[in-house]
Amino acid sequence: MSNPTPSLGDTVRIRLRVPQALGPVRAVRARSNPDREPRLAVAELTSSVDGWDWWEADLLIENPVHGYRWVIRTSDGADLWINARGVFSIETLDSEDFKLTTHPPAPVWAASTVMYQIFPDRFARSAAADHRPMPDWAIPAAWSDEVALVPPARSAQFYGGDLDGIVEHLDHLERLGVTMIYLTPVFPGRSNHRYDAANFDAVDPALGGNDALVRLVEAAHGRGLTVIGDLTSNHSGDAHDWFVAAHRNPEAIESDFYYWLDDAQEDYASWLGVPSLPKFNWNSAELRRRFIEGADSVVAEWLEPPFSLDGWRIDVANMTGRHGSEDLNAIVRQTIRRTMIDVNPDTILLAESTNDASSDFQGDGWHGAMTYANFTRPLWGWLSEPASAASGGLGMTMDAIPSYTGRQFYEAHRQFSAGFPWQVRLANMNALDTHDTPRFATRARAGVIPVAVGMSMTVPGIPVIFAGDEFGLSGIDGEHSRTPIPWQDIDAAAERIDLYAALVALRRTHSALNTGGMRWLHVGDDVLVYVREDPTESILVVAARADFDVLLSPDAIAGAPAASRLFGQAILSDDADGIRLSGSGPAFAVWQAAPHAPAD
Amino acid sequence: MSNPTPSLGDTVRIRLRVPQALGPVRAVRARSNPDREPRLAVAELTSSVDGWDWWEADLLIENPVHGYRWVIRTSDGADLWINARGVFSIETLDSEDFKLTTHPPAPVWAASTVMYQIFPDRFARSAAADHRPMPDWAIPAAWSDEVALVPPARSAQFYGGDLDGIVEHLDHLERLGVTMIYLTPVFPGRSNHRYDAANFDAVDPALGGNDALVRLVEAAHGRGLTVIGDLTSNHSGDAHDWFVAAHRNPEAIESDFYYWLDDAQEDYASWLGVPSLPKFNWNSAELRRRFIEGADSVVAEWLEPPFSLDGWRIDVANMTGRHGSEDLNAIVRQTIRRTMIDVNPDTILLAESTNDASSDFQGDGWHGAMTYANFTRPLWGWLSEPASAASGGLGMTMDAIPSYTGRQFYEAHRQFSAGFPWQVRLANMNALDTHDTPRFATRARAGVIPVAVGMSMTVPGIPVIFAGDEFGLSGIDGEHSRTPIPWQDIDAAAERIDLYAALVALRRTHSALNTGGMRWLHVGDDVLVYVREDPTESILVVAARADFDVLLSPDAIAGAPAASRLFGQAILSDDADGIRLSGSGPAFAVWQAAPHAPAD
Repeated sequence: MSNPTPSLGDTVRIRLRVPQALGPVRAVRARSNPDREPRLAVAELTSSVDGWDWWEADLLIENPVHGYRWVIRTSDGADLWINARGVFSIETLDSEDFKLTTHPPAPVWAASTVMYQIFPDRFARSAAADHRPMPDWAIPAAWSDEVALVPPARSAQFYGGDLDGIVEHLDHLERLGVTMIYLTPVFPGRSNHRYDAANFDAVDPALGGNDALVRLVEAAHGRGLTVIGDLTSNHSGDAHDWFVAAHRNPEAIESDFYYWLDDAQEDYASWLGVPSLPKFNWNSAELRRRFIEGADSVVAEWLEPPFSLDGWRIDVANMTGRHGSEDLNAIVRQTIRRTMIDVNPDTILLAESTNDASSDFQGDGWHGAMTYANFTRPLWGWLSEPASAASGGLGMTMDAIPSYTGRQFYEAHRQFSAGFPWQVRLANMNALDTHDTPRFATRARAGVIPVAVGMSMTVPGIPVIFAGDEFGLSGIDGEHSRTPIPWQDIDAAAERIDLYAALVALRRTHSALNTGGMRWLHVGDDVLVYVREDPTESILVVAARADFDVLLSPDAIAGAPAASRLFGQAILSDDADGIRLSGSGPAFAVWQAAPHAPAD
Repeated sequence: MSNPTPSLGDTVRIRLRVPQALGPVRAVRARSNPDREPRLAVAELTSSVDGWDWWEADLLIENPVHGYRWVIRTSDGADLWINARGVFSIETLDSEDFKLTTHPPAPVWAASTVMYQIFPDRFARSAAADHRPMPDWAIPAAWSDEVALVPPARSAQFYGGDLDGIVEHLDHLERLGVTMIYLTPVFPGRSNHRYDAANFDAVDPALGGNDALVRLVEAAHGRGLTVIGDLTSNHSGDAHDWFVAAHRNPEAIESDFYYWLDDAQEDYASWLGVPSLPKFNWNSAELRRRFIEGADSVVAEWLEPPFSLDGWRIDVANMTGRHGSEDLNAIVRQTIRRTMIDVNPDTILLAESTNDASSDFQGDGWHGAMTYANFTRPLWGWLSEPASAASGGLGMTMDAIPSYTGRQFYEAHRQFSAGFPWQVRLANMNALDTHDTPRFATRARAGVIPVAVGMSMTVPGIPVIFAGDEFGLSGIDGEHSRTPIPWQDIDAAAERIDLYAALVALRRTHSALNTGGMRWLHVGDDVLVYVREDPTESILVVAARADFDVLLSPDAIAGAPAASRLFGQAILSDDADGIRLSGSGPAFAVWQAAPHAPAD
């Protein structure tokens, strides 16, 4: 399209290609829905290339989120509807329209980001850590100790990883080729995960304090890496200064920061009823001012020098501001975004919403979602051992991984992706696992690691590597996955690290894998074939969990048999009936082919 | 369920029945999403009856709209998800959950309403009409004149039907058995449709004035009929007092009632750019006060004695309050509802939104939708002559009726129904046609009128008869359908009138058809079979456009072959493999069978 990030009142030219194999087409329209009243724009046939017809239409952008879909009237009088979910023979839902938004776009670097997630206590420990006092809640652990899975050690076990430990291992990140560090919380709490913040004023001294964060960000920036932090907008810890001031003290100015269940301010609402995580009440103007609104807020302060974080990941964004009959979620996310734009518009705002997320992600606040419904869980379903058990954190129903066919992966992926505007999809996080989930390798079918990592690098969105995956670590739940990185085994892990590095390099060197459109060519039980394409190239991807032999239509890819193989082992060949893709599985293979574009 | 209209904090017991034919079930859960974080409630097996297992779970209602879905873990470890759209093997969308709402429910009579829509200028003319002056915009027409399809006569042609004309024909409505009159606008405008209101202060003298409305409502109420009016919340006419005061007059107090495009208040935003319909700006507190908010507002005034309307249908509700970057729709609909509750909570609020409507209909404002996406258009697609042309108003893409199979009807019906809470679905208007559309009979396949009318009476929602359909009238577009009622032909129309009366009676005498659950038994290209059921009865419905012979599973209906036929011609019989339904089509047939309920 002529402009993927338009302003209100702009006219955007959009294009559709229609395979000539469909037969004669009577008409093509682009259906918009301004102010929720349908409007059809007449599309014109502008060129015909390589067996495809290109149609173009103009859209007048009238609302902040402008949905549209295509409708093709075929020669038999039937209509085909094309939207973000697929192609349909009946009318489709507004929520699954393609969507342009006029909200300020994410930073231009967002879509080319490869994220590396670090849980500071477990990543690396600098020598300075030996000389720091232990937090009073901490139960010390040696780096080689097993992770404790049950309380009290579960959250109190303290390995002493710190921010200077990360600085010391930036070579490793550069070797991988990642472009962003996502740090889970660095503010002090009363746990090793620090999602129970005691304040947002200073970096936990146990991690090295503010100066260590400055050192880390400067070193990372020096190598071209961005760094984002993690904020808990749904709740604080019960040791938070604000909570301590207000608890049992109705006179406190912070009283309206929380939801009290009695006048004495003894009992309070909390995250899933966990008393150590009191829930914020975003009706409070003072809370908004201190935390998220304006240049003096927490949100702003850490984006400014000397800290200069490049953005935030927001914890439990799905529940933020939602309580009983209240829903202040939109106000919170829009305020955070506005504050960030005022401080530094070149920052990114990602937010956790691990299930059906798209309705909160229409471009007005969060740039992208940390979500598992559209990629992570379906991928586990397709690539895990059949009927595997999985423990908490991944959001699997009744803690078991479903056994999905490739078709089910595809259906789930499209269903849970369609609601996002394309610009948001490009900033969604595609993780195989995180600090909250089991590690993917734990239940993976034999040989599918390259398939899973490869898919995370080639579907729309930001690939995420949870530190340790490149060492082949396993973990049966979110806690267990927080294994200290076994630096002593780095040589033994070389093959897997190199695999990650190769796939990251693939992602980074091909623009089509960052921002190119997505087209599905084949969906089978054991094999998926898709293309990412932009005006410079077409990237053909095959992902297979078993042997495969697929026949694509002759016009699927321009000049396909001449494509150059970029990664993996598989055979791309001419066949009397089309283009043949075959190989032994599991396999992940990628080719670069000529771009497919309308004639000028 | 134990309570379909709960309050916040209530616990609601819900039930699911699972066919034993599914095989052993490992577990059943009810998945809620409070504050958008999933929560699973464990369901218990409570009884087993007639080949079905009944499972029950408790839901704590925490948000005003409480979505839930069922998940069944089958013996092979796979999960089945059951939501308002159907049964799925992958996770489903939040928007398609079953939904309970804590907003005040519609009047108890809403779901048992059968609506009769009257376009006053064309329904009937009392003798008094001869003595009234013509409006200055009017082009007089005799009752037998053809409807003019092109301007200027198109909107100015004046037949002179009036409210006393309706009073004189209430016997006809009683013969049909309808329970509600929906009057299109009665306020003066400068057109025969009056959607261009000149004021909301008084009934158009050309219709008989305020006194005539009082006579009509009193007479209708005396026969047990309710009466609702029609308000244009998106726009007024350009002859409206408020617009006239403000146009080219920036000093006017009404200046902020509209969207001006220049400081001189010369140009303005209007409905689809039609200058005679200037769009309301709902940011105006004074507009809200005069029109929709509080006991002195237009919304309130006509619900109070002596007028005592029973509710409103809101025109162009989908666009109301939406303009560019603004979206005040929720505020407008919630304010109208609150005002109505304050005046008389036993009133109904229906709203026009003819496409994908459900996101505006979550129970917080409108009770039900006048929409065509979930019933009207799919039904036309299934029951019209293949590849029929249709003209404007029905919202058919490129003005052609698609040719749908029964499967496509079903898919479209479920897709566009799933988003509504069940209590809203029960108040949605199921029209075959309206004053804005071609008439259904115009393009109907031979013999399908009973099928279409029968379906409108038996699917969830309020059946709508557009006055004249029972005379077999046709109309090629919304204008043409506004044919004066041919009272002189009433005897010739007796068979069709009796058909309508029989189907209305069927609807009214069976509680399951008003509020009972909906279960689909068979979906074929030419035949659809479903059940409506409540604790007192199961109503089995077959709708066929051609000959049919369908085998249902033996446990589909309790005691099916012994069911009593209530309507139509078809054969219900025992078969070695199940229950057989057969007949020649088109056919619409209905049986009453024993209720299916868990053991006490």
